[in-house]
Amino acid sequence: MYDVIIIGSGAAGYAAGLYCVRYKLKTLIVGNQRGGQSALAHDIENYPGFISIKGPELMQKFQEHVIQYGGEVKDDEVIDISQNPDKTFTLSLGLGEKLQTHTVLLAIGTKRRMLNAPGERELDGKGITYCATCDGFFFRGKTVAVVGGGDAAATAALYLAEICPKVYLLVRKEKMRAEPIWIEQIALRQNIEVLYSTAVKAFHGTAKLETVDLSTGRTLDDVKGVFIEIGAEPNTALVDKFELEKDAKGFLVVNQDQSTKIPGLFAAGDITNLSNHFHQIATAIGEGSVAANSLFMYRSAHNDQS
Amino acid sequence: MYDVIIIGSGAAGYAAGLYCVRYKLKTLIVGNQRGGQSALAHDIENYPGFISIKGPELMQKFQEHVIQYGGEVKDDEVIDISQNPDKTFTLSLGLGEKLQTHTVLLAIGTKRRMLNAPGERELDGKGITYCATCDGFFFRGKTVAVVGGGDAAATAALYLAEICPKVYLLVRKEKMRAEPIWIEQIALRQNIEVLYSTAVKAFHGTAKLETVDLSTGRTLDDVKGVFIEIGAEPNTALVDKFELEKDAKGFLVVNQDQSTKIPGLFAAGDITNLSNHFHQIATAIGEGSVAANSLFMYRSAHNDQS
Repeated sequence: MYDVIIIGSGAAGYAAGLYCVRYKLKTLIVGNQRGGQSALAHDIENYPGFISIKGPELMQKFQEHVIQYGGEVKDDEVIDISQNPDKTFTLSLGLGEKLQTHTVLLAIGTKRRMLNAPGERELDGKGITYCATCDGFFFRGKTVAVVGGGDAAATAALYLAEICPKVYLLVRKEKMRAEPIWIEQIALRQNIEVLYSTAVKAFHGTAKLETVDLSTGRTLDDVKGVFIEIGAEPNTALVDKFELEKDAKGFLVVNQDQSTKIPGLFAAGDITNLSNHFHQIATAIGEGSVAANSLFMYRSAHNDQS
Repeated sequence: MYDVIIIGSGAAGYAAGLYCVRYKLKTLIVGNQRGGQSALAHDIENYPGFISIKGPELMQKFQEHVIQYGGEVKDDEVIDISQNPDKTFTLSLGLGEKLQTHTVLLAIGTKRRMLNAPGERELDGKGITYCATCDGFFFRGKTVAVVGGGDAAATAALYLAEICPKVYLLVRKEKMRAEPIWIEQIALRQNIEVLYSTAVKAFHGTAKLETVDLSTGRTLDDVKGVFIEIGAEPNTALVDKFELEKDAKGFLVVNQDQSTKIPGLFAAGDITNLSNHFHQIATAIGEGSVAANSLFMYRSAHNDQS
């Protein structure tokens, strides 16, 4: 019987795990994608303390940190969570194992939306990226394109316009659904060219992105980076049965202590509605640490169960 | 004219500064205590990525990170903030300088409450500490004491009881004001001895804490660590004039994007009501990064001012 099983081995899960083991809670982290989204990042320059580090390397450090203080990590997928009459939980794993725990922390983040255009997967990290805040800096001084029509795409274009000589903004529909203030500001920028009713047909290149074919017949051959800013979907299917509250974008609404309405079930990181939906390693570790403190409080208050 | 002046050079300020400079905002961090509370920590073991690091060393890394990407840092105290008719701000510094900025981020944290007992200041970090979550692990296997009667002291005692053979809980009044659940749980722990109507008269020791004299005449001579858990006061005096909303504990109530009711004035880190009042480097950098994103949005929306 564990005190805490953390589902998800990304930044939020590791931070929570670190705090939990230091609180002397018997803690297991289970995940089927070690390092979460962060492990997909080629270079991370915005996690304070490391001026520049590879995503997998930082996540390896996070994992070692947890293990150093006594945490366990398992590579497997949790396929079912059920709460027992005594309020403990049983977790079913993909490989058939069943685990018992007093509490569960859900930290399985989001799945980014992709265009599913030819060449997109192959050039991911070779010119194609999904986070202007994270990766914009690597493309300063170069011509780039942003794909999307919402606030994320609009603000990404505005940011990139500060550091790049030219920014194409590719909007699939005939108008943007971003807030009017962003549309106004984009109109004021000489170096943003908005192409409406324009989708990406294909990405081309081998070692790196070379050209982008558009649905209008035009080909962009000066673009060194493409930022696909069409959002991300929180991975909430695993907890559908608990009918947790969600916000308009589908993220789990949690309390300030990261708890949900189910006693003993907490959530942290990109999957929640907190941190103003700003999905960064920095915010994930903040939420993870808060969750661990709350898990410790919860276990201390229910000590008779152990 | 700066885009952003960040007041406070602790974890929240540095994280915000890093994100702001990467957003290409002209950014200055002003603080009179480099590294903030974290720089007072002898060893930090709970910032993910660094298994163990000295407080000043981690804060030095944070500062270098900001400077590397173009941020400016100034050692001085901000003694006054005023908002001009055009919504920009003028900051007056202790050494006489006046600075102009479009936005201000307040990240000056809290001042911890001290007992002001003889020997307390001299033995700070030599057996006396103010954060069981941060420092408890260093005292595992040893006899310790906790000072305080509220939730922070109660939960600190419960945590320490898991890792220490014996925990004294020194409560100044004749009963605790902690929540009943904590008082119940404390009563169940064989290794917590609660001493009511008991204050610390003096701490003794040279290289490290040796004995603790109590107001009752008793002397504790087996205690290796004392955790003073009597809270912290948010440093809000600098913004009194703006009459910002505060919560019951005196922390600034900010919106999810770290904004306040004053346009252009944001707050992040220990001074706010967010992160469930869990004051850690991890939560401070989370809030700092969210604030920077919001500052970037604010500046992008008010571009005509620049």
